[in-house]
Amino acid sequence: MRYSKFFVPTLRDDPADAEVISHKLLLRAGFIRRVTSGVYDYLPIGLRVLRKIEAVVRDEMDRAGAQELLMPMVQPGELWEKSGRMEKYGPELLKFQDRHDHQSCLGPTHEEVICDLVSRELRSYKQLPMNLYQIQAKFRDEIRPRFGLMRGREFIMKDAYSFHADEACLAAEYRNMFNAYCSIFSRLGLKFRPVEADTGSIGGNNSHEFHVLAESGEDLIAHCDACDYAANVEKAVSGRNLPQGIVADLAEVQTPDVTSAEDVAAFLSIDVGLLVKTLVYRAVGGEVDGEIIAACVRGDDQLQEIKLAHAIGADGVEMATDAEISSIGGVTGFVGPKGLKCRLLLDRTLAGAVGLVAGANRKDLHLTCLDVERDLDSVVFADLRETRAGDRCGRCSGSMQLSRGIEVGHVFELGTRYSEPMEVLFQDQGGKRATATMGCYGIGVSRLLAAIVEQCYDESGIAWPANLAPFKVGLITMGKSEAVNEASEAIYRQLLDAGVEVLWDERNERPGVKFKDAELIGLPIQVVIGDRGLADGNAEIGLRGGDRKSVPIADAVAETLDMLQGATG
Amino acid sequence: MRYSKFFVPTLRDDPADAEVISHKLLLRAGFIRRVTSGVYDYLPIGLRVLRKIEAVVRDEMDRAGAQELLMPMVQPGELWEKSGRMEKYGPELLKFQDRHDHQSCLGPTHEEVICDLVSRELRSYKQLPMNLYQIQAKFRDEIRPRFGLMRGREFIMKDAYSFHADEACLAAEYRNMFNAYCSIFSRLGLKFRPVEADTGSIGGNNSHEFHVLAESGEDLIAHCDACDYAANVEKAVSGRNLPQGIVADLAEVQTPDVTSAEDVAAFLSIDVGLLVKTLVYRAVGGEVDGEIIAACVRGDDQLQEIKLAHAIGADGVEMATDAEISSIGGVTGFVGPKGLKCRLLLDRTLAGAVGLVAGANRKDLHLTCLDVERDLDSVVFADLRETRAGDRCGRCSGSMQLSRGIEVGHVFELGTRYSEPMEVLFQDQGGKRATATMGCYGIGVSRLLAAIVEQCYDESGIAWPANLAPFKVGLITMGKSEAVNEASEAIYRQLLDAGVEVLWDERNERPGVKFKDAELIGLPIQVVIGDRGLADGNAEIGLRGGDRKSVPIADAVAETLDMLQGATG
Repeated sequence: MRYSKFFVPTLRDDPADAEVISHKLLLRAGFIRRVTSGVYDYLPIGLRVLRKIEAVVRDEMDRAGAQELLMPMVQPGELWEKSGRMEKYGPELLKFQDRHDHQSCLGPTHEEVICDLVSRELRSYKQLPMNLYQIQAKFRDEIRPRFGLMRGREFIMKDAYSFHADEACLAAEYRNMFNAYCSIFSRLGLKFRPVEADTGSIGGNNSHEFHVLAESGEDLIAHCDACDYAANVEKAVSGRNLPQGIVADLAEVQTPDVTSAEDVAAFLSIDVGLLVKTLVYRAVGGEVDGEIIAACVRGDDQLQEIKLAHAIGADGVEMATDAEISSIGGVTGFVGPKGLKCRLLLDRTLAGAVGLVAGANRKDLHLTCLDVERDLDSVVFADLRETRAGDRCGRCSGSMQLSRGIEVGHVFELGTRYSEPMEVLFQDQGGKRATATMGCYGIGVSRLLAAIVEQCYDESGIAWPANLAPFKVGLITMGKSEAVNEASEAIYRQLLDAGVEVLWDERNERPGVKFKDAELIGLPIQVVIGDRGLADGNAEIGLRGGDRKSVPIADAVAETLDMLQGATG
Repeated sequence: MRYSKFFVPTLRDDPADAEVISHKLLLRAGFIRRVTSGVYDYLPIGLRVLRKIEAVVRDEMDRAGAQELLMPMVQPGELWEKSGRMEKYGPELLKFQDRHDHQSCLGPTHEEVICDLVSRELRSYKQLPMNLYQIQAKFRDEIRPRFGLMRGREFIMKDAYSFHADEACLAAEYRNMFNAYCSIFSRLGLKFRPVEADTGSIGGNNSHEFHVLAESGEDLIAHCDACDYAANVEKAVSGRNLPQGIVADLAEVQTPDVTSAEDVAAFLSIDVGLLVKTLVYRAVGGEVDGEIIAACVRGDDQLQEIKLAHAIGADGVEMATDAEISSIGGVTGFVGPKGLKCRLLLDRTLAGAVGLVAGANRKDLHLTCLDVERDLDSVVFADLRETRAGDRCGRCSGSMQLSRGIEVGHVFELGTRYSEPMEVLFQDQGGKRATATMGCYGIGVSRLLAAIVEQCYDESGIAWPANLAPFKVGLITMGKSEAVNEASEAIYRQLLDAGVEVLWDERNERPGVKFKDAELIGLPIQVVIGDRGLADGNAEIGLRGGDRKSVPIADAVAETLDMLQGATG
């Protein structure tokens, strides 16, 4: 490709509205442009990389035995009514009426459509298992799209759905997909980690997220420094060393206007880990919808709301209002576990604890020397706390670390959550009607474009892995003489003939501009033809960001191919 | 691919709701399934062909120097306000509010988005020309989606947009795209015809549609049997031999309850070509919006409304009501050109005509011996009639033929229709701000899947051209012996190793079922391994629909490759 004919509008400066590095660089290097909130154009150079990512994903999915199909973005509302998600999915599901007033939506995911398709064609267990996938544009009406391709509204996803006659077959395919994902992210050159994920209100046995490790990641993941245990903090289980309190009779202490755990601990000169933080919630969704629930964690722990929701069988929880707190006998700022008229859950690190301090459910008053077993009735223990760095691993004696991650993949044993309402039925080996069990497997393809940049950049721009680079070679012509142009064109032709993707910068620009653009765009190999070198019969060749060496012009193509071989392994 | 692992749900019978052959066969052969009105899933075998069509389109667009990008399906409403099409596009533009009540729409085409993009990046004439294209899903909320992929609502299109500093450059690119389209449709093995198309209310100099010739086509195209003149009937210009009428004074004749041209001609025993058919319309859109207009054609001609709209500068025309006819002095059933109080257009074949019969604008009365020049005031002549088979060519002395066509491509010199309101400006060579001039070029990629089937089928199923077939070879195992299975697998492996796409039917089904499916799906070459042949050391090889020959099993792969060579040319 000749640079002067190529639409790659690079920018000198960081765009004002871009916060994360990938967003800045993809804009600056002319890979993407914003159309509207969370919606982007992929410019020619960006699309080249996107297609290479897609090709890796497709290749590994095909190798794993999945079959590609293509489903539509516009979906009929009745399928979502049937699955029960029309309302439940929330405002990220963009709904509209078509010209015949038929309720429709833009597909944020395709469980409904694939179940509808398979339910109409599936007859016998002999057709199972099957794993169908697509690479396709999706739409989720995010309330706050941000970070460019990281959290867009229209985005490109690879989504796969597998159907099985039994759980064992699903478990095998889950492992198969897990391995395929590891291959995909490895081939994309990413530092990533599969982590256990919460299965949430969907249920199911197993779920893993795949995270690209990056400071800009929106997710917090916990992982052991000794074993391979890793999980989303929404799910991570860990232990901690606890302070020992004083064994004595339960007593009251005046704490005028002192409410937060830290302040109470300071006021009483005790370790904040001896405080009991009591939080009151209203359950949302599920059979417990609307119930007021109190939950306690140590004063220096954070309650993980998804764990709480999971523990009570709700879809989620919301903080209770002051009125709701009063209704169960609590006093805002001085809520404690003793005497509350509602269901009470305690984090399991509070089991057997003594010498605690807790709100007394009366203004300006706390209880001291609380003994959980002695002083509280009918409590339920559960894992409610969020894992902190330094916690003891839930699996071994190692220490937990926290990292930021970008979720780029998710595999899920769905079970019959969708296949049952969508009636994906088949005749089993015994001749009986049975419901297929399902897995689903997603990869954020356009998000990967950003995630790769988050791991592959330097101060000059993007440093694409050779197998994903939009072009392998940046050929730069320095000088305007006929000789330098002719030599450049000869090299250009030879590289093309050798099957090398090359971007030839033959623009009438200063060398500084050309080098800046080459570094910004991030092509792995630079070949430079200049008047001075050419006078000695030489070209210069080097890796992006490294030194260039002079080679005889006759050897330039062979040297480039060698270097390319090295760069792509 | 092993058939037993492949999701290709074939049907024995024609689906009840499919009218045209491509819709029937694509459903029966398991290529597509309906999701909702005008919206389809492309099943794995269908997607394989779709991708091959896309690859041909992409290759020719790239060769022609166009650059691929990818724009979103969801588009912001303000761009459509800016171009002036938000209301004008009509109900096929699906509009909706997102969760922030922001007006948005699903892209039925991308002039607005591409102009917005280019306007933000274009600075100098040096960046021009550029031609940007995408292959992407679009949505048009058709009032009556039909014929499967022929007229869907969500469909896949290749759309290209070129930007130029001057008209000469646009004309050159138009020709370049025209040639690329000819290459594309030729490589797809189609019998097609580029035809001149009406530029409609958009204006512009030049427009051609590319039609695949097929009985099921929704369009009627006219073409000369002697020269290469071809045009959509909306635009086709042709001549005809006209009857000579009697020269005499204008007179009145009683025609009680006789109104239609045919009935009046029969009643008066004259050639129906001597009748004047006078039609009254109301103009829609443009500066003439709402104006009542009368238009005359010969009694045996049909008035082509798009020609009339074009002639008066309207977007379209609608038949006037009886009240509107009265308002200009007409009497329904007896309307004639003489004395009407409105603008009057006559088809140009009426210029100089004498001895005509026309309505008298009084009930049960016609005029005879009408002489257009003598008896009518201030008439305007224009080409208003629809070309009929047998007409004289508008370009040579040949004879016009009519054919049905499926529009699969459209190239258009847009001029500044979009670039002006969307402010696609650049600094020209003289340093002045100028508006870029544009072309646009569309291909209905998913419609092509259907159009190809309309030309490539027989009573047994689809007969794919070898370069588009989902698999090149259908390998059919007949019999259940270990030997036949082993021999089949060996051939299967060898074909795969030779880079041949092969679908191996190793199902536990009767031979009749396997052959029926193979013919239906339409793979070009069949290789059959059966117990009987194998006993003699033979396989059978043949083209789909032709005879098979026995060849020694050791030569089967080489023979297949030979046959494939022949089939792909």
